[in-house]
Amino acid sequence: MGTALASLARELDAADELSGLRARFVLDDAVYLDGNSLGALPVSVPGRLTDVVYREWGELRIRSWDESGWWTAPERIGDRIAPLVGAAPGQIVVGDSTSVNVFKAVVAAVRMAEEGQEGQERGEGRRDEILVDATTFPTDGYIAESAARMTGRTLRPVTPSEVPAALSDRTAAVLLNHVDYRTGRLHDLPGLTAAIHEAGAYAVWDLCHSAGALPVGLDAHGVDLAVGCTYKYLNGGPGSPAYLYVRRDLQPRFDSPLPGWTSHTDPFAMAPAYAPAPGAARGRVGTPDILSMLALEAALDVWYGGRDGGPGGPGGPGGPGGGSADGTAVTIESVRAKSLALTDFFLRCVAAYVPEGRVESLTPTAHAERGSQVALRCDDAGDVMKALIHQGVIGDFRHPDVLRFGFTPLYVTFTDAERAARVLGETLKSMG
Amino acid sequence: MGTALASLARELDAADELSGLRARFVLDDAVYLDGNSLGALPVSVPGRLTDVVYREWGELRIRSWDESGWWTAPERIGDRIAPLVGAAPGQIVVGDSTSVNVFKAVVAAVRMAEEGQEGQERGEGRRDEILVDATTFPTDGYIAESAARMTGRTLRPVTPSEVPAALSDRTAAVLLNHVDYRTGRLHDLPGLTAAIHEAGAYAVWDLCHSAGALPVGLDAHGVDLAVGCTYKYLNGGPGSPAYLYVRRDLQPRFDSPLPGWTSHTDPFAMAPAYAPAPGAARGRVGTPDILSMLALEAALDVWYGGRDGGPGGPGGPGGPGGGSADGTAVTIESVRAKSLALTDFFLRCVAAYVPEGRVESLTPTAHAERGSQVALRCDDAGDVMKALIHQGVIGDFRHPDVLRFGFTPLYVTFTDAERAARVLGETLKSMG
Repeated sequence: MGTALASLARELDAADELSGLRARFVLDDAVYLDGNSLGALPVSVPGRLTDVVYREWGELRIRSWDESGWWTAPERIGDRIAPLVGAAPGQIVVGDSTSVNVFKAVVAAVRMAEEGQEGQERGEGRRDEILVDATTFPTDGYIAESAARMTGRTLRPVTPSEVPAALSDRTAAVLLNHVDYRTGRLHDLPGLTAAIHEAGAYAVWDLCHSAGALPVGLDAHGVDLAVGCTYKYLNGGPGSPAYLYVRRDLQPRFDSPLPGWTSHTDPFAMAPAYAPAPGAARGRVGTPDILSMLALEAALDVWYGGRDGGPGGPGGPGGPGGGSADGTAVTIESVRAKSLALTDFFLRCVAAYVPEGRVESLTPTAHAERGSQVALRCDDAGDVMKALIHQGVIGDFRHPDVLRFGFTPLYVTFTDAERAARVLGETLKSMG
Repeated sequence: MGTALASLARELDAADELSGLRARFVLDDAVYLDGNSLGALPVSVPGRLTDVVYREWGELRIRSWDESGWWTAPERIGDRIAPLVGAAPGQIVVGDSTSVNVFKAVVAAVRMAEEGQEGQERGEGRRDEILVDATTFPTDGYIAESAARMTGRTLRPVTPSEVPAALSDRTAAVLLNHVDYRTGRLHDLPGLTAAIHEAGAYAVWDLCHSAGALPVGLDAHGVDLAVGCTYKYLNGGPGSPAYLYVRRDLQPRFDSPLPGWTSHTDPFAMAPAYAPAPGAARGRVGTPDILSMLALEAALDVWYGGRDGGPGGPGGPGGPGGGSADGTAVTIESVRAKSLALTDFFLRCVAAYVPEGRVESLTPTAHAERGSQVALRCDDAGDVMKALIHQGVIGDFRHPDVLRFGFTPLYVTFTDAERAARVLGETLKSMG
């Protein structure tokens, strides 16, 4: 059985149209299944960053804000992310952390819901509730609580499946995760967004665990606002800047709680009165964090043909699906197909190698409900993960009892998946 | 006269105890007087950043959060900044932009002022006002307005000199700049802080234009909260992370409007309920932005003996004034002495070289009222600065009529100051 699965893995790798993308990353012999926490280093990053530091900062210095395109980086890089999440250009701005962007998005959504209700007293008819995914990654819940407190709303945690029943004319905004960070469950973004709109409320989606791993379709599904990090499936580097999506027709109504000077319509006028910029730039706050931002820009080369991002700077247009002169552009649909094949195959290997009942999969078997990770519950998960890492299988542990294995289709192989399941099985047998 | 001043400049440079520090930066033949906007590249940064990218991210990947000290970087780097602003360790956290930190600080200050007043109605006795420097860098005003709106307060802009008269038992918090970004005027931090405390309000200081250029004395003067950027006199790189100071005894009362997951007392417990961390970490929000943060950490080597920050990682202890095995540590007092000597000398050269009445200095002549920049007003400032830059004298222009010349004592020479004034004089004569 083991030999058969190992052999099958090699066949699947040989047939994998995306197998060449692995060469766009710096990797070693370890099985790296933690790209859902920190993506591997793209080969396009170091050379670009050296140029940014030595030439753009060291030589051009202040001139680079204009001449090296630093000032426009937040929207330019947003437009590089846009095709990966199904957004037309001009709707995504890069900057700040996911948490800060959650605050902007939830407060702005509440303010949109409030429009036309100004004269109304608290009570019937006033949209005084914010719903939040009760199983969310903690920061979303903490920040939503602060947004509720500061806008005079009540925060109501509900599981995503309970959202349709919880919606009412009291609902101002709903903050949901596209993929659950713990279980890997994919939530129904189109259906839930439609239900939220039906109730007259605004939908804010957190894409941290879906962007770069599966199609999101922000524009197609009419999502209002969205946020996401860039250091997981987008491989932007540790703590790389997050992004904010505001649907184009809502941008004039985006009323930021963090109206920093770079979101001003004429920032260098240094005007005492705030006047918000049009477009995605309205979501900016302070001075863009250039080193991290341009490392992210280079990391996105992976999707656009794997340019090496050397002294010439990042390449021009040519997006996912658009092809490229010096490499193959990557479509999110092809990534999704491989992601599902990888997690299917991993689950099959786990079933073959792991003693029955020793672990329980928390990840749905239905494709429509699965992200790009597999979460396995077992009582001694902390010790098990330590043993796996010691053997070169890198996943992570989530308190109290979850083993997480993230599958980044850009660089994870079927051979990796087989080896991870095999080492897991051996480890669990040896640990009894 | 010109020859005499040029000769004097050489003498002053020869006698300058800090002249060796210039070698800790990547510089060229230009006169760089824009370090009050973007500090020059320290030689310690590129090697360290290469190590962070290739080894810590590329090879260790997720392990670096623990093994490379990524997780603790915000407080560790805060402690590296602390001696430069007169703060004992454990009170500064690095992260986010200045604007975001202004929001945290002002909202937290209002909440501190509100304690014990919960039952009180609006009206007499309630602390319902926030004072803000009417001449502030715009972002502070914009963000303070948002903080006022979201805490139900009124924002009242006053010039710093009017603050004592404007204070009352209605004042909750006061947001002031230590040095005015436009004129270079240094405000009376000790006196204003004492007046604010006398009125029972909380003082928030923005140190963007003073930290790294002159002593601040946060602890000594009992400042409540402070924020600052790190890309000016601290040379952290374009858009490098800002910092937040919360005085130690106020930390338990710091109630953040942005309670992100990394400020939780046990972040990896992933608890649904927020419980704030003790100490400076309470000011954190999202995942630390590691590339920019560690570039800043290496940039601070300049102050600690100029380590090259190579593969061994940042050096150990040994702070400003503490000496160091591989170079000379820098005291902020010595930097301040050179800063005043430089700006004095520059003003003297301007008086000698520039036709009388052609420019007007906005920068106070009294040392106690001067930061580390000289601001000259002239009607055609935009064109004049373009001409200066064309001749290798790099300052900047602030709308509508201000020429700014920033003097970073770590790398600006007296010869630079003489040349800048001479080129300015020649340019103004040629422009008529």
